[in-house]
Amino acid sequence: MPPAAPLRPRATGEPLGIAGGGGSLPRVVADAAAANGWSPHLLGVGDGLATDWSPYPSRRMPWGQLGDGLAWLRDKGAHRLVLCGTISVRPDFRSIFPSIRTLLMLPQILSVVRGGDDSLLRAATRAFEARGFEVVGVQEIVPALLAPAGRIAGPAATVADEAAIERGFGAAAMLGALDIGQAAVASAERVIALEAIEGTREMLKRVADLHRRGRIGRSERCVLVKRCKPGQDRRLDLPSIGAATVEEAANAGLSGIAISAGEALMLDYDDLRRMADARRIFVIGYESETRDQP
Amino acid sequence: MPPAAPLRPRATGEPLGIAGGGGSLPRVVADAAAANGWSPHLLGVGDGLATDWSPYPSRRMPWGQLGDGLAWLRDKGAHRLVLCGTISVRPDFRSIFPSIRTLLMLPQILSVVRGGDDSLLRAATRAFEARGFEVVGVQEIVPALLAPAGRIAGPAATVADEAAIERGFGAAAMLGALDIGQAAVASAERVIALEAIEGTREMLKRVADLHRRGRIGRSERCVLVKRCKPGQDRRLDLPSIGAATVEEAANAGLSGIAISAGEALMLDYDDLRRMADARRIFVIGYESETRDQP
Repeated sequence: MPPAAPLRPRATGEPLGIAGGGGSLPRVVADAAAANGWSPHLLGVGDGLATDWSPYPSRRMPWGQLGDGLAWLRDKGAHRLVLCGTISVRPDFRSIFPSIRTLLMLPQILSVVRGGDDSLLRAATRAFEARGFEVVGVQEIVPALLAPAGRIAGPAATVADEAAIERGFGAAAMLGALDIGQAAVASAERVIALEAIEGTREMLKRVADLHRRGRIGRSERCVLVKRCKPGQDRRLDLPSIGAATVEEAANAGLSGIAISAGEALMLDYDDLRRMADARRIFVIGYESETRDQP
Repeated sequence: MPPAAPLRPRATGEPLGIAGGGGSLPRVVADAAAANGWSPHLLGVGDGLATDWSPYPSRRMPWGQLGDGLAWLRDKGAHRLVLCGTISVRPDFRSIFPSIRTLLMLPQILSVVRGGDDSLLRAATRAFEARGFEVVGVQEIVPALLAPAGRIAGPAATVADEAAIERGFGAAAMLGALDIGQAAVASAERVIALEAIEGTREMLKRVADLHRRGRIGRSERCVLVKRCKPGQDRRLDLPSIGAATVEEAANAGLSGIAISAGEALMLDYDDLRRMADARRIFVIGYESETRDQP
């Protein structure tokens, strides 16, 4: 199935709001949007607060100035907004009180700062929509990022790898159903590690450490799986991998990576493929039977 | 409910086999057994291979000499065997071939070295039983170690703590049902960390790190829960805590610890209580509604 066509602006130069956290995704989205005629306007949030977003116009949006950030976007004429990149640091109540515009949003903000990252994003989305913004998914702006089904890069998966993928996807489905995380590491025989709030990179560091200390058998083939949470709002926080993920998986002694086909995002694909070939790490798009119907 | 009476030897001096891994539990069991008239015979396994078990007679039992270890116990006249302490390092196939007695057990051993720690222990138990040993639980030898229901040590739990405990027990039940782990850290709002093969200590180090880096809110009260896996064989690998667990929980910024009442083990109780008071960490025995019926 070829990727869907990207969402285009109603008129060339229409501003697109991008609430950008950490990682490379926000810039990938901004560049693709610009190539399709949008005028990207960046709001640095979470881990993206310190990022230099030039050449795009940008504002920092700490939690205490959420109202001001949205007012700026509206002044610029933006109607659509993409949320992407990592947040990681929890909102601190003490940072919330400086601005008047933000005080007017307090009830929503209070609901934003409680709950897991997923409920945080959902609550933020509701607050943005209540202010007239349409929140769109990364994959609507850059559909080419979505992982295809089947082999994506690296060597073929073995039968043992397939069993590990099944086990990992089952564990990740349960993680997602409880709104805990999206990623797991498993072998054919057992689950090795589960991602909660620490994130995929730190989970893989842990697996590397377990390998070094003999806690994982020498011949035990382990895989990383990343998948959407069951029922997840596909406009928010899709699971993603990039070349760095492949490298981290290799350093953790894994044999490969499986991600939800048509739901997970692949960043810097050429680098990812080169890394997968160089480190002999398979990358496949997996169509889980437990995947939600669209 | 007062603790049940400990299992006593048929005759004073009857040998009791103790397959002892790492941690303080094997010696606690040996001392309690000796006080009740048993003659403890230790087989050092896993993390207990390098332990000095004196004054008790002992043998090292690497995976490759499992058969020899059991033969030694049988020669001594032991009929009953307790498995306790941590294993952590996976059996390595290359260590399995040295001994003739072990070669005769190869089919069982092959089933032992596959699967999670839980299936490893179950398979080991079947192998021991097939050789005429009766495997008994730690709590049969030292029933006083079982956690009572209700407040055990430290301050009272708050309403937010109760909600965190509920959430943590739910997550840990799911972990256990998939044979992944027994412990989780949660707040009232979300699950913070899940234990897979890394063990509780390392999970708590991770939570300490997440706290330091602002990934957990300053006012977010988090608790550690440890519980039996649903359907777990109660003779094997009961969840346990000690004074060190309380200290690690305090260092991780937690408010308290909840363990399954009547199922989890408390080691070094006096030290545990002193530590809980000193660090203001509550410890409670929790009667989960999802607890298995005995």
